[in-house]
Amino acid sequence: MNRQSGDFTLPGEAGYEKLTLELAEKWGADVIRDSDGTQLSKEILDAGYDIYSTVCIIRDHNEWLEKNPDKYQQSFLMSYPVMAEAAEVKIDIIDGFYKEQFLINASDDSIRYWEVFDRTQDEKVDDSNWSYDKKTGIVTVKNVKPFHYYTVNFLVYRIWEEISMYNHVTNNWDKEHLAPLDPRSEEAQAYLIDWLHNWCKDHESTNVVRFTSLFYNFVWIWGNDDRNRNLYTDWGSYDFTVSPLALDEFAKKYGYSLTSEDFINKGKLHVTHMPPTKKMKDYYEFTQRFVCDFGKKLVDIVHSYGKKAYVFYDDSWVGLEPYGPYFKEYGFDGLIKCVFSGYESRLCAGVDVPVHELRLHPYLFPVGLGGLPTFSEGGNPKKDTQDYWVRVRRALVRAKIDRLGLGGYLHLTQDYPDFIDYVAELLDEFRMIKKLQEDDVLYTIPVKVAVLHAWGSYRSWTLSGHFHETWMHTLIHINESLSGFPMNVDFISFEDIRDKGLDGYDVVINAGKAGSAWSGGENWDDSQIVTAIQKWVYEGGVFLGVGESSAWGDGQTYLKLGHVFGLDIDTGAKVCHGRYTFNIDEELNQKLIPEGVTIKKRDNVYLTNKDANVILEEGGIPKIVINPYGSGYGVYISEYEKTFPNMRMLFNIILYCSGYDTYDSFVADNIGVECAFFKKAQILLVINNTDQDVTTDIKVFERTKNVTLKPYEMKKLQL
Amino acid sequence: MNRQSGDFTLPGEAGYEKLTLELAEKWGADVIRDSDGTQLSKEILDAGYDIYSTVCIIRDHNEWLEKNPDKYQQSFLMSYPVMAEAAEVKIDIIDGFYKEQFLINASDDSIRYWEVFDRTQDEKVDDSNWSYDKKTGIVTVKNVKPFHYYTVNFLVYRIWEEISMYNHVTNNWDKEHLAPLDPRSEEAQAYLIDWLHNWCKDHESTNVVRFTSLFYNFVWIWGNDDRNRNLYTDWGSYDFTVSPLALDEFAKKYGYSLTSEDFINKGKLHVTHMPPTKKMKDYYEFTQRFVCDFGKKLVDIVHSYGKKAYVFYDDSWVGLEPYGPYFKEYGFDGLIKCVFSGYESRLCAGVDVPVHELRLHPYLFPVGLGGLPTFSEGGNPKKDTQDYWVRVRRALVRAKIDRLGLGGYLHLTQDYPDFIDYVAELLDEFRMIKKLQEDDVLYTIPVKVAVLHAWGSYRSWTLSGHFHETWMHTLIHINESLSGFPMNVDFISFEDIRDKGLDGYDVVINAGKAGSAWSGGENWDDSQIVTAIQKWVYEGGVFLGVGESSAWGDGQTYLKLGHVFGLDIDTGAKVCHGRYTFNIDEELNQKLIPEGVTIKKRDNVYLTNKDANVILEEGGIPKIVINPYGSGYGVYISEYEKTFPNMRMLFNIILYCSGYDTYDSFVADNIGVECAFFKKAQILLVINNTDQDVTTDIKVFERTKNVTLKPYEMKKLQL
Repeated sequence: MNRQSGDFTLPGEAGYEKLTLELAEKWGADVIRDSDGTQLSKEILDAGYDIYSTVCIIRDHNEWLEKNPDKYQQSFLMSYPVMAEAAEVKIDIIDGFYKEQFLINASDDSIRYWEVFDRTQDEKVDDSNWSYDKKTGIVTVKNVKPFHYYTVNFLVYRIWEEISMYNHVTNNWDKEHLAPLDPRSEEAQAYLIDWLHNWCKDHESTNVVRFTSLFYNFVWIWGNDDRNRNLYTDWGSYDFTVSPLALDEFAKKYGYSLTSEDFINKGKLHVTHMPPTKKMKDYYEFTQRFVCDFGKKLVDIVHSYGKKAYVFYDDSWVGLEPYGPYFKEYGFDGLIKCVFSGYESRLCAGVDVPVHELRLHPYLFPVGLGGLPTFSEGGNPKKDTQDYWVRVRRALVRAKIDRLGLGGYLHLTQDYPDFIDYVAELLDEFRMIKKLQEDDVLYTIPVKVAVLHAWGSYRSWTLSGHFHETWMHTLIHINESLSGFPMNVDFISFEDIRDKGLDGYDVVINAGKAGSAWSGGENWDDSQIVTAIQKWVYEGGVFLGVGESSAWGDGQTYLKLGHVFGLDIDTGAKVCHGRYTFNIDEELNQKLIPEGVTIKKRDNVYLTNKDANVILEEGGIPKIVINPYGSGYGVYISEYEKTFPNMRMLFNIILYCSGYDTYDSFVADNIGVECAFFKKAQILLVINNTDQDVTTDIKVFERTKNVTLKPYEMKKLQL
Repeated sequence: MNRQSGDFTLPGEAGYEKLTLELAEKWGADVIRDSDGTQLSKEILDAGYDIYSTVCIIRDHNEWLEKNPDKYQQSFLMSYPVMAEAAEVKIDIIDGFYKEQFLINASDDSIRYWEVFDRTQDEKVDDSNWSYDKKTGIVTVKNVKPFHYYTVNFLVYRIWEEISMYNHVTNNWDKEHLAPLDPRSEEAQAYLIDWLHNWCKDHESTNVVRFTSLFYNFVWIWGNDDRNRNLYTDWGSYDFTVSPLALDEFAKKYGYSLTSEDFINKGKLHVTHMPPTKKMKDYYEFTQRFVCDFGKKLVDIVHSYGKKAYVFYDDSWVGLEPYGPYFKEYGFDGLIKCVFSGYESRLCAGVDVPVHELRLHPYLFPVGLGGLPTFSEGGNPKKDTQDYWVRVRRALVRAKIDRLGLGGYLHLTQDYPDFIDYVAELLDEFRMIKKLQEDDVLYTIPVKVAVLHAWGSYRSWTLSGHFHETWMHTLIHINESLSGFPMNVDFISFEDIRDKGLDGYDVVINAGKAGSAWSGGENWDDSQIVTAIQKWVYEGGVFLGVGESSAWGDGQTYLKLGHVFGLDIDTGAKVCHGRYTFNIDEELNQKLIPEGVTIKKRDNVYLTNKDANVILEEGGIPKIVINPYGSGYGVYISEYEKTFPNMRMLFNIILYCSGYDTYDSFVADNIGVECAFFKKAQILLVINNTDQDVTTDIKVFERTKNVTLKPYEMKKLQL
């Protein structure tokens, strides 16, 4: 195979055999896959390509589930609050939830986990004061307090697998509702093992079993009201893994019992964006262990048939996270990550697994995410592909990816020859980058950055889903920016600081809202952490805080690192306190802040160190401050969004504060252009991240190169 | 005296006797006063007018203080935090403070109240670990933890009275620094009593002793850096009343001791805008009792000389608040309030005292507040006067004021004949209003409004100063709006709800930031309060919340009245939860929201009751919601500023929700126009609050009147 083919997975489609094979040729595919909703015909299977086949292991077992109705997957729900008007209150517990998704589990095993709460007083109601009527679905609570609100935590079976449900509802399908099977019980495991053996025997042509993740979907609780269909959508939390059996096993293993309220948390559940509780951390670990133990058995079966096992990291990913503690144990042969953004490419590339594959966007569907047309009237799939690709490419250059792929209905591409041509071009770029990466050493600025948050390496690069689901969190903008910077990046937790300190890092970044997992929440209420960071900065480190970094509680400073930043945030208790006026440090402003930087101000930020260097301000409010602190720097940025000017500004600040302010080799003057230098071959990749023609100077050793690039273009310069 | 003269206090000025008497005639003065910096000559004193003389009782005693250097007023300060680099840290405690204002009180009595804190660990340092060196002013702390921050709470004498200091510094005076004397000790009291006797004897012509408040200034801590001169400015808190003696007496009376940290509060002090602690409430009460006990003695002395005693409620007001528990006991004959705003007129009018006088603005000074010219090049004192007057007038119409006055240097008015004429016009308006109020009954819509906050009636109308000092707090905008509405307004505390419930009120308003005194802070962590309000609304009440009303803690809802409002605010824990979409209730929008309403949205507000009526929104975020709740309403407004459209909107919502939505008699179509109807005389005052000509319809019983008004004009219509 020459370098202009291979490393590409094509979605084949029965009925379009000619197109499938033509595009396989044009795009240099070495693998053909099926997709959700497509089949591969014999003609395709026999055409000499490797074959990936998709398996969603917990779906498609309705018949068995009907005979084993206690083996549906489950979840806790909290009933909508009901106000007591008299001494007794009746609560229709399922009211408001989507009844095609949920069925009350009223077994005795289940009901012993139910709890009733007075939410006005924040108090559990004694079990002797309530009863459940299976016929009506109503919980009656006695001896209540008038004008208090009551809720019931209860267990439901989930009788419609959420991805199937979504596709049905979105596309108005009229097919059988596929239910999710819970592999927690021995019976279910025996059944699934048997099922997989049969599947492998039935799919002789399949070289790679592509697990569409494993067992448990991200949490997606639907309501019965069109005006609020998605009651809860969390791509990271574990609510869909519970069952009385799981909770019983947890209690045996961990020596204490979890309650329904440990999950329900006053109706908030445990959003991934908030710091995990100790109990939830235990439960996550418990579930990860289970998913791995049984998942590994399935991988072994696949291997026993001479097939490889890849896992697609999306949808039912809960418990198998590739940065979790057990991922290596599964023995997966490859990881496939669907990508919209650079950070997802880094996420994939960083996993210890033989093959790293990206599933590109757009998906070959008529309509894209958010409902806009792609392969249909009004769509421009070439442009979409370019936009996604430039986001991914700058990250992919920094860390090697082995394969690319597409998904969906291949026939939809027929009317878009410019898309077809662009994919070929993109694949050429990819293969060229990969070849350089295989043969060479990428130059990386010797700055080691740690991103600090409550989850640490377990949630490296991602927060809990794609960019368009997490854009409101500052940190994803930081991660996305970092994904293409020529520097080393780690993700660390507060536990890591307690255990190992910060030696070896040049820059630590912490970014997020007060109380969030990304800022760190209660972790800041630990003087050991604060002291360790103060010492580390004082001795030369750079701590870069964004937003409400290190905010916690009610101490002498609200930002626990306020002394490091040289500023603080007023929560209202200091509204009568004076504020230092200041002048902008014009020299640093000129040096570090490119034109076009847009940073949102926070009205309640004020200097506490009058000698801090304010390098950006608005209306007398500091927005970016560099505070010399001992031999190091505290840096504060009031908010951050990933725009080209902002990204360059972040890059500049990191370099300046790490002592690399004179470093400018391989940095393009134009902020929309990035470079990657391969040392052995002395090749400089120059990447235009923008949809504009650009001409830019690039400092290359002692010389300056002038480069002109077309929109989205990548050029390979021999130095 | 005819009705076109009297009820006016003129500031006389020696050296300008002719002008003084001319203006006294033109403006119909019955009283001439001196001002800070002016004298009255014999010619003026003998001209047949009543004479007010200003006394600032705690100032002008430098000679005695030099002999009694432990009788200066005092304060706690917290030293700037210093980081320990080794096992010992040295703190120059006064560093950063204005040394002309403060002198360390290093007496043994003082030092036993000092405390040292590890602010990183939030822990008191044992007294055995620190010592103070009087020679250097340095506290040395031993056995410290490296990279922790340490502070010292210490006592200072205040050696420059703050108003004197301000005038000196602002005007570059080069006079003696007047120090404030603390009347807490028996010796000081004996001295002051003697002094006041002598003063009364020396001021035979004086009819009224005008106490420029009493003993303790609002808190005004200055720093030594030009870039942050005012370290702390709180018009309501009590830090300037402390001394070892006061604290010892407190301990005796209350059975427990206050510490320095009870005042310092981690450097935050106790901002009036935050809810008071139990200890601070005790201390306030203790101080109020003292100020009243000794203040009353001074008033009695004044009375014993046949003079009246008025008090000017500004500057050194701390402890004598007219809505405090003891104000009536002083026996003051009059209260003088300087006013910029309507709510200050209501504040004055509502006090139980024989005479209510307003000191109008602008002050007769070259330069006004904020440094803009008034009676000097570039100034327009007539326009300033009009602007202040229209704010005050709409409130003054609702509640009777007895007298008006001016203050400052009279000679400055000479070059501003239009100002002189306008004051005469304004005084005619005032006298006409007063006559109507004396003879008649003002029509008031039978809606009883309670403003609920942590301070209750003690801080009626005001928050803790003038509008321009508190504009950032939503509630002052509400209070200012209410000050001119034709309805009854009370100010109540959470304690009032606990004691008496809400019977008798139609509408309760609560407005402010989470955790603030105005929203209520921890008071919301009391299910008795929440339940009482839920019951009261359910049975017909209207609860109107603004901003973060009822926000507290971490419960099932963040707004504890979330069920009443039909909405809640997400603090981050619900970022993965769905939100109801909604349509605007167009009918209510049309009815209640005048053109020009501007309400700031809060991105994290979301509906919890899908049937709540959203009447204003922005980008899918509800801004104004009326939520039917039992027989009553919860109303939520995301933010509020006093503009004419917003004021009318607030008025409309209060009327609509109280069942008066058809009420429109005496309401002008033009939102800049307000009316007051006097029932006996059947007179309608029509007030143009704007600086524009307006023509408006007014519904009057069954008819419609069309009225045209000049800018700022008030018309008196006989119906």
